[in-house]
Amino acid sequence: MQTLPILRSSARSDVAPFRAMDVLAEANRMIANGANVISLAVGQPSAPAPRAAMEAARAMLAHGRIGYTDALGRRSLRARIAAHYAQWYGVDVPAERVMVTTGSSAGFNLAFLAAFDPGARIAIAEPGYPAYRNILKALGLVPIEIPVGAAEGYVLTAEHLARVHAETPLDGVLIASPGNPTGTVTPRDELRRLVEFSDRAGIRFISDEIYHGLAFGEPTASALEFSDSPIVVNSFSKYYLMTGWRCGWLVLPASLVRPAERIAQSLYISAPELSQVAAEAAMDCTDELDGVKRSYERSRAHLSAALPALGFSQIAPMDGAFYAYAAIPERFESSTQFAQAALRECHVAITPGLDFDLHRGERFVRLSYAGDPAAIKEALQRLEHHFRG
Amino acid sequence: MQTLPILRSSARSDVAPFRAMDVLAEANRMIANGANVISLAVGQPSAPAPRAAMEAARAMLAHGRIGYTDALGRRSLRARIAAHYAQWYGVDVPAERVMVTTGSSAGFNLAFLAAFDPGARIAIAEPGYPAYRNILKALGLVPIEIPVGAAEGYVLTAEHLARVHAETPLDGVLIASPGNPTGTVTPRDELRRLVEFSDRAGIRFISDEIYHGLAFGEPTASALEFSDSPIVVNSFSKYYLMTGWRCGWLVLPASLVRPAERIAQSLYISAPELSQVAAEAAMDCTDELDGVKRSYERSRAHLSAALPALGFSQIAPMDGAFYAYAAIPERFESSTQFAQAALRECHVAITPGLDFDLHRGERFVRLSYAGDPAAIKEALQRLEHHFRG
Repeated sequence: MQTLPILRSSARSDVAPFRAMDVLAEANRMIANGANVISLAVGQPSAPAPRAAMEAARAMLAHGRIGYTDALGRRSLRARIAAHYAQWYGVDVPAERVMVTTGSSAGFNLAFLAAFDPGARIAIAEPGYPAYRNILKALGLVPIEIPVGAAEGYVLTAEHLARVHAETPLDGVLIASPGNPTGTVTPRDELRRLVEFSDRAGIRFISDEIYHGLAFGEPTASALEFSDSPIVVNSFSKYYLMTGWRCGWLVLPASLVRPAERIAQSLYISAPELSQVAAEAAMDCTDELDGVKRSYERSRAHLSAALPALGFSQIAPMDGAFYAYAAIPERFESSTQFAQAALRECHVAITPGLDFDLHRGERFVRLSYAGDPAAIKEALQRLEHHFRG
Repeated sequence: MQTLPILRSSARSDVAPFRAMDVLAEANRMIANGANVISLAVGQPSAPAPRAAMEAARAMLAHGRIGYTDALGRRSLRARIAAHYAQWYGVDVPAERVMVTTGSSAGFNLAFLAAFDPGARIAIAEPGYPAYRNILKALGLVPIEIPVGAAEGYVLTAEHLARVHAETPLDGVLIASPGNPTGTVTPRDELRRLVEFSDRAGIRFISDEIYHGLAFGEPTASALEFSDSPIVVNSFSKYYLMTGWRCGWLVLPASLVRPAERIAQSLYISAPELSQVAAEAAMDCTDELDGVKRSYERSRAHLSAALPALGFSQIAPMDGAFYAYAAIPERFESSTQFAQAALRECHVAITPGLDFDLHRGERFVRLSYAGDPAAIKEALQRLEHHFRG
């Protein structure tokens, strides 16, 4: 009998799993089997999309046809996003530089593909959003992870960047503010220094602004306030409560619009049209959205009190986004073990820190407080009962 | 004054544009300015999604929350797709090997990333869908275009493959049946020979089956009827009439499921949930969908008669999908020029052949007949009046 050649998977598909998604899948299996699981694992608001967004989607479904849009997105949504920069930041952004994307996931992929060739070195903060590292690697790019810690409020600074760049030149840097998993807001002056240093050094600055609208102190500055060169990535998933709709946007420097458009034509065709229509309506729902933000503030207060009492330490600042990132109590062996125990024994899903930090992550976990405040309160009670009791 | 370093776009973003999308954007601008443009440019049905799909979406909007799903997709949709293989092809496909994707665009990207490392050589037919070439290039893969022509009915055969593989080994092959732009259906026995040759030679077989359900002669065979090794790419955009919903699927060999899932967690998170819910409902709408297919058959008959009369030649077989691919009349300089004249002078959008064939494409155009039959008839009359008159 003939033996057929073995077809293997690619080496580049050997990226780390996004453990939060694995936890979500496991939690969904438990829920399907009747368990009352509370998820603090995924950065997903439990509040539904704004009423006007749902209404716009319903109206479009009634009228009928949902088709491809231009690869850059619907013109009216691009114009509305451009107007948002004037309203929120006092910055003049022409609609021609706005590109609608299939979530920020597509935004990162398109930004990386348009700006960097294989081998390019892109600095990111560690801990940071794991998809950065995984997408960069899948595209043949080299993530340069710069460790930041609780002592410095998890802020990556222009000095960090200059030090790394002096050793081996960087091609790009990606900064998230507010950050995931730490909730860190990069202060306005620091962001300006980062952008200006990058411009001078010829480093492409990518600004992840998907948690804008969710800062609990000063509003966060946009990188576009300081320069036209940054690529800004944003999303309708967080402040706008539209995760599963898969809609986000890029603001690109003029020279990258056509390269990004060409790639998107083949790689995405267009973002989902119904989601684009709903997203445009969501942008006018500030009152409703700010109400949801206030519910996060209540959960944040619960967490701030509960975490130290539970024995957590090195708690990140929680300046923005909807995450707490903290070191687990000393007596636990690892955060993977802690997260497994929490899921199986308390039916509370949380994300082990290895997602965000391959070096120190086994001591940390991330808890999302984007869910229903009452459920978060109950989750904390379950953890307290089980792990303190 | 200091001169800042210039930040360039990447070399890999210098892919060819998808001209059909550029034509779409230009047509949309003309329509916005009041022109009555009929588009035969994009492979997009004018019929809306099936009623039950719309109804399922409306019901979900009423209940509220639309969120991330598992990266592999909703379990019920994966099970429904698995059942489809038993119903349509008599093949047993476990739901665990089905992955829901954000359109077939994501399916191709995930298949390529999971199966191939940079430098891998993937055979495709020329003419063929331009996104194959563009995605492959953006990912550092090498498309090996094998020319096929009208004389052989545009079918790429196992002999073609063996000849190329003997010169320099191939890592993969991607066959679309029915094909875009030619409408070619690869005969069942030829598909079996292609799959079996690939398995023996250690070549990963990718089967683009997104036009299944739209064959006008014998039903098309699935590559899964002959082997478990192929990767099958499919979509809800064509037969199921759900282009702008961005939903499709992969069937993967068991060994590629986890690699593809890991990449999707970071690169896509999940396909749009509302679209997944609507797509599941669409799969039971065969009667309605076959009615739309019959309208394509009427347009196909019009085109078959009109194209030779207009002076077109080398007309591809039109066995399936909803495209006519043909050489323009001798007197025109190029298909780009012909397409521009058609758009500006007749307000009829068609796609120049360079999208599909960089070598011979300047003599060819693609006309999609997925639109409203009356509009297609009028488009043909306009072309006839202008170009014959």
